[in-house]
This record gives sequence, structure tokens and C-alpha cells, in this order.
Amino acid sequence: MEYRRIKEQDDYGDISQKDVESLNGKPLAGALTSSIPASGGGLTNKSSWKLKSVVTLALTLLTSSQAILIVWSKRAGKYEYSVTTANFSVEALKCALSLVALFRIWKTQGVTEDNRLSASFDEVSVYPIPAVLYLVKNLLQYYIFAYVDAPAYQILKNLNIISTGVLYRIILKKKLSEIQWAAFILLCAGCTTAQLNPSSDRVLQTPFQGWVMAIVMALLSGFAGVYTEAIMKKRPSRNINVQNFWLYIFGVLFNLIAICVQDYDAVMNKGFFHGYSFITVLMILNHALSGIAVSMVMKYADNIVKVYSTSVAMLLTAVVSVFLFGFHLSLAFFLGSTVVSVSIYLHSIGKPQPQK
Amino acid sequence: MEYRRIKEQDDYGDISQKDVESLNGKPLAGALTSSIPASGGGLTNKSSWKLKSVVTLALTLLTSSQAILIVWSKRAGKYEYSVTTANFSVEALKCALSLVALFRIWKTQGVTEDNRLSASFDEVSVYPIPAVLYLVKNLLQYYIFAYVDAPAYQILKNLNIISTGVLYRIILKKKLSEIQWAAFILLCAGCTTAQLNPSSDRVLQTPFQGWVMAIVMALLSGFAGVYTEAIMKKRPSRNINVQNFWLYIFGVLFNLIAICVQDYDAVMNKGFFHGYSFITVLMILNHALSGIAVSMVMKYADNIVKVYSTSVAMLLTAVVSVFLFGFHLSLAFFLGSTVVSVSIYLHSIGKPQPQK
Repeated sequence: MEYRRIKEQDDYGDISQKDVESLNGKPLAGALTSSIPASGGGLTNKSSWKLKSVVTLALTLLTSSQAILIVWSKRAGKYEYSVTTANFSVEALKCALSLVALFRIWKTQGVTEDNRLSASFDEVSVYPIPAVLYLVKNLLQYYIFAYVDAPAYQILKNLNIISTGVLYRIILKKKLSEIQWAAFILLCAGCTTAQLNPSSDRVLQTPFQGWVMAIVMALLSGFAGVYTEAIMKKRPSRNINVQNFWLYIFGVLFNLIAICVQDYDAVMNKGFFHGYSFITVLMILNHALSGIAVSMVMKYADNIVKVYSTSVAMLLTAVVSVFLFGFHLSLAFFLGSTVVSVSIYLHSIGKPQPQK
Repeated sequence: MEYRRIKEQDDYGDISQKDVESLNGKPLAGALTSSIPASGGGLTNKSSWKLKSVVTLALTLLTSSQAILIVWSKRAGKYEYSVTTANFSVEALKCALSLVALFRIWKTQGVTEDNRLSASFDEVSVYPIPAVLYLVKNLLQYYIFAYVDAPAYQILKNLNIISTGVLYRIILKKKLSEIQWAAFILLCAGCTTAQLNPSSDRVLQTPFQGWVMAIVMALLSGFAGVYTEAIMKKRPSRNINVQNFWLYIFGVLFNLIAICVQDYDAVMNKGFFHGYSFITVLMILNHALSGIAVSMVMKYADNIVKVYSTSVAMLLTAVVSVFLFGFHLSLAFFLGSTVVSVSIYLHSIGKPQPQK
């Protein structure tokens, strides 16, 4: 088995470029295109590009509509439902969708080594790690507000862009060209510029502890993203729905614990779905689909594409909000959007020369 | 004479790449390095790079201290002197400095075809054109304030960057690579971002007439810059002090007319130098030296270098003002400075491939 061979060579802790690049590597490509055409491994260049574009577009549109739904739900009044049950529902829905997709694949292709749900302990053991990282990051989020206020936090969140780039380089050992690094710094500066508002300058008064926490949070989030990419690409031929199932099932578990800790009484007294409205259901659906889109971007594209995609989504949200909610666009928004656009252009023309 | 040969080949109205590039061209280089080493024409690559750097640094430092002197003079109280006499003094001082430099050169090298002051009508006829363009631009400046306020005007002035790049390309037919174009757009966005303040958004309410006037002013200013470069480089071997003399003498003339029209009574009653203080003299000295630095950048470097130099000067001014006047730097300033820095980096690595 190709997978076993790779797995034996490299320990999971040492996620080397060899693993990640094996997606396009010769030994896998030949074996996979013939046997498992629908699995995503070993696609031709053209169809791989098509798939990349479609999942990136889907992620961009889903992320931008996500933010619009949040604004919409805020306008409609404050949250009446418990957030933990909504998070649980999102994870459960993602699991369910992965299983439905799997059943359909089993029907047409039968159960194979790559699409069977059962997995070794070695394979499964890495899946809870991103979930744990996100959990720690979300816990830190409660404490950082002791040092920074909401507008400053919004600005500091853009550190994610830089941390993702740095960890992508260090952990996945993928090269970005000098121009692409410049583009990445521009992406961060452009996104921050586009979000500037009269309260943004408060970020400059952030105390040292606030900076440390913001940087730790950015690193946790970046590491979770990069780790997810490593998991998804470790075994390119493994069916993505199986990988998603194992990724999401730990989300289901962790959120179940969160419900018990935080909202046990509310759920027991008012019911699990208390306070759900049409818009709550829409938001859950959107979050679930976005989550699946993120997984697909991780498997078929990479973290850099994800960062660009969510940045463009942020800009799209602002433009759409002008029409939907009568928001005004600031000069800073136009300047930031210009810088982000130039960054995307530079990233695309700055591809590193292939090293043979 | 090399100059005659070139002059006969090309009409002045048709400033072709051939003229401009003859600075580094073979036919001139050989003839000039031996005969007129101090004239600036036909320098070796290394000394040309050194000269470029020195004049660029001088322009940057002079421009940034210019803005600081303006802030200083404003803090000290409003202008007591007539601005027209100050402008006249600047132009006269530049003329005087050019003549002093010329006398010294004549003493050591004797009078040659390239450093004699007398010039044909054909040669002199183009020198008033930049002065006229700046005059028209300055007149327009009075009218544009009917449509835009001061903070918005400050923002709109950054259109100069784009107009200079476009006219540099069209008129001087010099190539910028795709990366350098991207860098130029970033320079404009970065400078504007660094200057953002709570009143900047008013620029978005600029009426159509305001935009048209701002664009016309940017084009006039860009055209004057590009035209000056064309004049300075048309005859590379011509001594720069002669070229400066003819450039500035029309400034002296035009400002003499301005004194007669605007401040005749004040000068007659209170004297020419009424209200001059130590800081006024410093400002005049600074403006004169900056003007000479601009001429040198035009002859030995180009408009693109000038734009970068003045942009960096703007950022330097803000940083120095923190120490001198207790100014606060905004987040927008840091973001804009980052974008400008990346722009400079991209410009330097994005040099077009030499076409042979």
C-alpha cells in the first residue's frame, strides 16, 4: 500500500515536505488515478486547478455570507439560543454530511482501503489535536479581553495571517518566494487597513500581556490550520469524507462537554433547541458548509489559499453590507482593498521557480 | 560635437527613449568620461550609483526637514512676510548658487561647449515650460478649495504618484516591470494610508468638478516633473549648473511678476524683506537646496526615484515630529509605512529584464 510505505518512512511528528508534496508526486499519481478517481488524490493538473478554484470560491462565498448572517442576527436582536448547542449542531451536521457522502461512495465504489471508516489508532490519534488547539485558543479569548477591547482585538486578529505564513513555512516546509512573502505582509497590512475605524488606534495602547496573548492566539490558530493541512495531505488517497468524519467527531465530543459545563440547566429546563429561529438554522447550515469547505481547501489547496480566501470574504462582506444594511465604506476600506488586490496579484505572479 | 549630432537627429518635441537612454549609451560614454569627468555625463556604473544615492538621500533629508520647518514656522505664529518675496528669494538663491558653481568650474576647467552659459534659442526655449506648468497648477490650487477641503486635498495630492508613473511611461517611454507597477500603486495607497486621519473620509464626498481639478493638477505636476527630466537628460554632457540656471531664471522672472501683481504695496511700504525671521531664512535656504536636489535627481536618477524619495521624506517627517512636537503616530501610519516599505523593496527587486 502506498500509504503504508509513506507512513513507515516518516513519523507523524515529522511532517516533511516529502509527505505534503506526494500529492503531486509520481509514485502516488500513477497508482491512484486508475483505481480511485473520485478520491481527489492524483488528479491531473487541469482538474486539480478546477477543484482548487471551486473549493476556494465556495469558501469565500460561504465565509462572507457567514459574516452577513451574523450582522443580520444581531440586527434581529440578541442571541436567544445557547451558543454551545449551536456549535454542537454545526459539528454534528458536518459529521452527518460526511457520513451521507460516504454512504453514497460506498454504494458506487464499494468499501476500499481508502474509503473505509475504520482507522488505526495511529491514524485517528492526530485528529483531536486541531480541535484541542482551537479549544485552548477560544478559552484564551475570554482572558485577552482583560487587556484589549473589542476593536483592538479585531485588529490583532490579523496577526493570524502572519503566523499562518510563518508556520506554513516552518512546519510544512513549503517555500514561498520573496515576492509571495512581500504579498503576505501586504495582505496583513491591507486587511487591517480595510478594517480601520476611529477606535482602531486603541490597539497601540495594548499592554505587553495583551500582545503576548494575541501572538499566542495567532500561533495556536495558525498551528491548528497548518496541522489540519498536514493531516489532510498526509495520505492523499484517503477519502476526504473519512478524514472529515474523524476531524469533526472530536468537535462533537468537545462541544458536548461544553454544553454540560456551561448550559446544562438551560438545556434541561428549556430544551436543546430553545430560542432557535430561521436565521439560527441558516447560520448553523452555513457554518457546517464553511467547515467542510475549509477541509476541502486544506486537502486540495493549502493554508495560504485559505487565508486569501477569508480575507477576500471579509472585503466582500463589507461591500455586500453597503447594499443590505446601508453601511458606508471608508477611504481606509478602499485603500486596504487596493493593497489586498495587489497582494493577490503579486502572490499569483510570484510563484517560486520549480526546483528540480 | 556629440550633442549636435544627437540634437540634429531628434526634434525637441519628440523626446524619444533614445535621447534619455543616451546617458548610459555607448557613443556618449566613451567621449565624455575622458573629456568632462565632472559634468555627470558618462559616469561609470559604480560612481553613477553612488551619485544617484547621494542626491536621493539629500532630497529625502531636505524634503523632510522642509515639512518640519513649515510646522515649526506655523507653531511660531502666522506668516508675517509676503510669500511671493520668499518664493522669489528661493529662485534667486538657486540661480546664484548655480552661477557660483559655474564660476568655480570655469576656473578649473575653462569654458567649454558644455559648460558655457550662453545657449541657443532652441535650447533655452524649453526651460520656461515646467515653470509655466507649475504656475498653472498653483493657480488651480486656489479654485480647487471651492470643491474640496484641506484634509481631502492632502489625500488627493497622492494622485501625483500615479500621474507621474503614467506620464513617465508615456512621455519618457521608460519601462516599468509589472512588479514595479504594482509597487507604484502600493506607494500611492501606502502614502495615503499613512496620512489618514478622522477627516480623511470627506474626500469620498468630493464632487465631480473636484475630482476633475485634482486629476488635472496631478497631471500638470506629473507633466512638469517628467518634462524637467527630459530637459535635464536631453543633453547629458551639458553642465547641470547651466541647465539649472536656465531652469531657475524663469522662476525668478515669474515670481517677480507675482510680487508686482500681489504684493506691490506691501513691498513698497514695508520693504522687500519685511517680516523675515531666522526661520524664514532657514526655510528659503532649505527650499533652494531642495530645488537643486530635485534637479540633480532628475539628471542623475529619474522621476520615479524622486517620488519614492519624497514619499519616504513624508514618513520621516512624521517620525521626527513625534520627537520634536510630541505628535502621535496612528495605526494607519504604521500600516501605510509598512506598505511603502514593501513597495520600495518590490521596486528594487522588480527591475525589468534588460532587453537586447
